[in-house]
Formats: sequence, structure tokens, C-alpha cells
Amino acid sequence: MIARAATQLGCELVVLDRNANVPAAGAVGRVLVGDWDDPQTLVRLAREVDVVTLENEFVDATALGAVESAGHRVFPTAASIALAQDKLIQKQALASAGLPVAEFRPVTSREQLVAAARELGFPVVLKTRRNGYDGKGNFTIRQPEQIDEGWLALGGGRHGLLIEAFVPFVRELAVIVTRGCGGETAVYPVVESIQQNHICQAVIAPAAVAEEILGRAREIALGAVAAVDGIGSFGVEMFLTRKGDIMINELAPRVHNSGHYTIEGCECSQFENHVRAVLGWPLGQTRLLAHAVAMVNLLGKNRGPGNPQGLSAALAVPGAHVHLYGKATSDVGRKLGHVTALGGTPADALETAKRAADAIYFGENFR
Amino acid sequence: MIARAATQLGCELVVLDRNANVPAAGAVGRVLVGDWDDPQTLVRLAREVDVVTLENEFVDATALGAVESAGHRVFPTAASIALAQDKLIQKQALASAGLPVAEFRPVTSREQLVAAARELGFPVVLKTRRNGYDGKGNFTIRQPEQIDEGWLALGGGRHGLLIEAFVPFVRELAVIVTRGCGGETAVYPVVESIQQNHICQAVIAPAAVAEEILGRAREIALGAVAAVDGIGSFGVEMFLTRKGDIMINELAPRVHNSGHYTIEGCECSQFENHVRAVLGWPLGQTRLLAHAVAMVNLLGKNRGPGNPQGLSAALAVPGAHVHLYGKATSDVGRKLGHVTALGGTPADALETAKRAADAIYFGENFR
Repeated sequence: MIARAATQLGCELVVLDRNANVPAAGAVGRVLVGDWDDPQTLVRLAREVDVVTLENEFVDATALGAVESAGHRVFPTAASIALAQDKLIQKQALASAGLPVAEFRPVTSREQLVAAARELGFPVVLKTRRNGYDGKGNFTIRQPEQIDEGWLALGGGRHGLLIEAFVPFVRELAVIVTRGCGGETAVYPVVESIQQNHICQAVIAPAAVAEEILGRAREIALGAVAAVDGIGSFGVEMFLTRKGDIMINELAPRVHNSGHYTIEGCECSQFENHVRAVLGWPLGQTRLLAHAVAMVNLLGKNRGPGNPQGLSAALAVPGAHVHLYGKATSDVGRKLGHVTALGGTPADALETAKRAADAIYFGENFR
Repeated sequence: MIARAATQLGCELVVLDRNANVPAAGAVGRVLVGDWDDPQTLVRLAREVDVVTLENEFVDATALGAVESAGHRVFPTAASIALAQDKLIQKQALASAGLPVAEFRPVTSREQLVAAARELGFPVVLKTRRNGYDGKGNFTIRQPEQIDEGWLALGGGRHGLLIEAFVPFVRELAVIVTRGCGGETAVYPVVESIQQNHICQAVIAPAAVAEEILGRAREIALGAVAAVDGIGSFGVEMFLTRKGDIMINELAPRVHNSGHYTIEGCECSQFENHVRAVLGWPLGQTRLLAHAVAMVNLLGKNRGPGNPQGLSAALAVPGAHVHLYGKATSDVGRKLGHVTALGGTPADALETAKRAADAIYFGENFR
């Protein structure tokens, strides 16, 4: 979706991936196949382009630093990625900027885990410091008896871990912020993210919470992106507690699923604004084009081929915008596409998007 | 732009062009390089895909017929292209369907031209039967003394020609119609097309004419696409006379410049609806997403490189959607991109789009 926005603005793209068959290959001229953690490979990419940017936070910040040292532009910068890709360092950066985060502790041994869990009080959330997403690298320990299960589930000390106090939230909110090279920002509407098993199922814009909360969420999101000196589009996920407190859950240093609705829903999408930001161009407007916009993810329900069934029925739903990512295979919870709908009310928009999304399924033996 | 719409819906594309460096190459996985008038080459393309479609009307209908005979699906069909790509045959098809067209005559010799011009009365418009666009293959003969100039300008009898009575129009209107495999249709709003030197400069949706005229224009456009049994998105250009008569100027059997505004301006674009139509999927809604939408073409002003200058200033105009086609070279009147804007009134939308378009220019020494 970044590639799509970039080519519309006349840019040529080179995509680096480990696999020649990446979805973006359908949207660009050329794919470099190679290991993105290898500084030599990254420099080879950088030599061919004006700016290197990222669509995930898994590329090693040290390798990105080597690209910068060789004189190439990388946005978000290696320093931003270093602050964001390690969840322990990210939490430290956000906390030291005075932003609200749940209490957390580093965990390097089982003993430390036991001590930290007791200190924070159950439930606690154990996380891998790096490479987690969609609930992967994440274990909620509800009672002391689950400590060993969590410890083993996350590798039994093979990966760096952190532990966080569980935030008893009533809603999950998210805000996309695009920040330009000169520190200028574009802030998107605050959305509600509806999650199941730590995977985003749907997003509703705007979130149906008080104006005061919306304002506070936007300020916190802006603060979080500034705290890591981010350049480009960033997703900031937050918890809203019953008391009305907002806590940052996670900062993603990239375009984010909670902002996919902006393609049809906003004047300028998170993807186009990302391209504008990393190329030093003026940022576009973020206003909603309807009273409400809803996005529903198309998630795989089992392993199997990635091609969709039921597309025709989905396209028959008036006002549903269907996006398919062209991934080769489906798997449980894998994000294979999404549907966006605009509406007069959040319920209307969600109903339209859900109706189309429910018509689509993946894999041969499903249903 | 078709490729973009198709990949969003999860389609894989193969593009056939004479040149490996086509703009669509930036938006697809693979390009076949070859002559599109060669039936063998077309069959080679057809073997790799489920459906062959066209983005211009220049591919020879006989060659397309050979692809159909080999058992492949081509939409629009070879028969439709045969009725549309030759302007003489097109006019005959429209006239025999009872649709309003200016009087016309075939021209095969200078003598016949003289006689036909006298019969129709000056001014008359001399046209090549095939391969004309943007005023190319088009000569307005205002008085008898210009007959030789026109005759020579259009090849002196080397190409098939036709002559048409000049329609003294007050506005040029256009309508995009998408027609599906089962004859179902989606009709877009009637737009006004603002032309200079036979090249579209801007499009305003909806056209500011009486409701009765809008209704008639839609009916005529529907009739024109049905008359050639079209499948896919078609552009129908019309003249509106002072008396309120509507005459069809030309039918384009493809997505059309007068419908580029539909990307941001309508619920479902002419490009997505084209893809839906040729794949036998349900058609999308065509309603305007704002009171008014304007599209301004980015035209080359001289020969030179195709990369734009002034893009940053254009992107600073709030609400302007900039599209650049990535063509390698600029030339006088060449369409290199467009800008779309939504607005509360046609004047507002046009002002926004023009402001951004005016900021962009092509070539090194221009200005």
C-alpha cells in the first residue's frame, strides 16, 4: 500500500525482501531478494534509491545505522528504529518523555520473572523485547501457577523479555501520526480498535469517546512519535481505562493496520503521507471524508491457499471497499486483506464492512 | 490505473506492450514485450491470463478475433472493438441504433472530400478512421480554401478518412458507462469536459446543465455502449448545442480521461468497475462523494524529460490529489498526470485542482 501511494506520485520503487514473491512485487517494478538484516545488502538497496524506508520494525537498527554511515538517507532513522523495535527500550523512551505507560520491568531470568510478577501483581503480560506482532511474542500470566508456562512459551530465556502490569482497559484506541523531516505533523482521527486474541478485527473511526479523551489521545500519540524522533507514519496503540486514563500500549514505527481505513476514509492516506514525509514533501490533510469509517480485517481461519472465495458476494455489498493482499497462503489469524466502508454512523459503516468481509473466506475446506 | 485497481482486488497482471518501460510496469509484476497487433503475441498473452482486456482502442480487432477463436476471453470483445475503433463504422453503428450523431460521409478521394464538404456545409471536420486521439488525426476545414491543407494534413488519401458536419456546441459533456457481461450497467455522473486544441484540459462533475439534459445525456451514453455491445468501462463524449440538442462526438471503448476524477470522486472508480465488469463481478456504485469534483490534466508544454518540477508546491495545496504517470518524456500536449479535487461547488473544486496543477511543470527549460 506504500508502493501504491508512491507510484501514484511518480516514484520508482525497489523492494528488498527475503522472498521474490512479496505482495508488493505486484505493485512495483523491481524486487531485490536478500536478507534485510545484512548491512551489505541494505547498502546495495540504498545505492539504487534516494531514500530507504521500512514497512516493518524488524529490520535491525544496527544494520540501518551502517546504511546511514555509508551516506544514505533512511527514514525512519536508525536511531528511531533502535528506540522502537525493542519494546523494553521503547517503554523506557516513552516513560522518560513523561508519557503514560504501564509499569514494566526487564526480565532476564526465571527468578527475575517471579520477583517482577509479584511486585507488579497479577495478571502481568510477558513479552519478547523484539519481533512480536499480532499476539506472537506475548503471554498473559493470570496467576502465579502460569509463570512457568509463560516462561517456556516465550522461549525460556532464549530471547530478551520484559514484563508489564496488565492494564484493565475498557477500550483500545489508536492514532496514526505522520511526522515530517522538519518535525511537522499530521494527526489522524482517534479510532477504536476491536481486538480478539491480540489480533485487530476491526477499526472504527472516530472512536465513540468524549471529546476530551480524543484530544488527550491525540496529544499522547504526538508525544510518543516525537519521543522517538519519528519520521514517517507511525501507529500508536493505547488503552483507555474505566477511569478515563490513557496508557500507551505500543508504538509501531511504520504504517499501521489501525490506519488502513485512511485510504478511502481520509483526504490523504497514512500511506501517501508516509511517502510525503520520507521524501520531505508537505503533508496532506487527515480529515475524515464521512461521519464514520469502519475497517474490518480479512483474517485467515486455517492453513491453505491464500486466494479468496466469495469475492463476488463481497463486491455486491454497496459501499464496501475490498482490499486483498495477494498473499500466497492463508493461516490462522493471518491478515490477508481488509474491507473499508464509509457511513453516516459508526454502526452503519461497520455493518457494511462486516457484511462484505463475512462473505469472503480463504482456504479450500473452510465452511 | 486499471492495474492498480486490479491488484487491490488481488488480481495478478501481465501487461503486453511494445516497450518494456510502460508506466503500468510500475504497477504490475510482469511485462510481455511484443507487438499487440500480432495475433500470435496476443495469444501468448491470453494463455497466461483468465481475461484479456484493453486500455486503448488501437489493438486490431481482427487480431483480437483470433484470440477469441483460440478459446480465450477478451473484454471488450473483438466485435465491440471492431465497431468502435473505426470512426466511420462507429458512427454508422450509433446512427443505426437511432442515436444522435452529426452527419458524416466516408472519404476515399479528394474529389469525394470536395463533394461531401459542399454537401454538409462548412465548417466540416475531416478525421482519420483509425488511431486518432487528442486532436491527432483530426482537421477542421473552415472554408473551401482549406480543403487541400486538410487533405494533405491527414495523409492525402493514405489513410481511410471520414468527414463530419461541424457541431456548433456550447459545451462538451461526457459520461462513463460500465457495462457488465450480463448487460448490467453502472452510469457515472455527466461531466463537462473543457477542451483546448482538441485536448481535454479539465473535467467538472457534475456538469452545470439542466436536470433534463443530464438525464438525456445518461440515456444516450447508455444507448451508445449498448449499441456496440460493450463490456467494461467506456467513455462517451457528447456535444451540447445552444438549442439543447445532444450529439455523440465519440465513443471510446476503454476507460477514459473524462473519468479519471472517479478515483477519488466516486464510490467506485471507472478503473475498478472496469475490472469488475471484465471479470464478471458485480459492479460498484457510481455516486459522487462530494457536491462537486474537478480534474485538471497535467500536460507537457514542450519536449524534454518526463519528471515533474514543482511537485512539492502542488502537494502543499490542501485537498489536491496528484497523480503522475511516470512517463519517461514530456511533449507538447502529452498527458503526464492529473490532479483531482473535491469541493462544495464546481468552482471551488476546480480552483483547488488548478492551483496544484499550475504548480507542476515538466522539462528542463520550461518557465
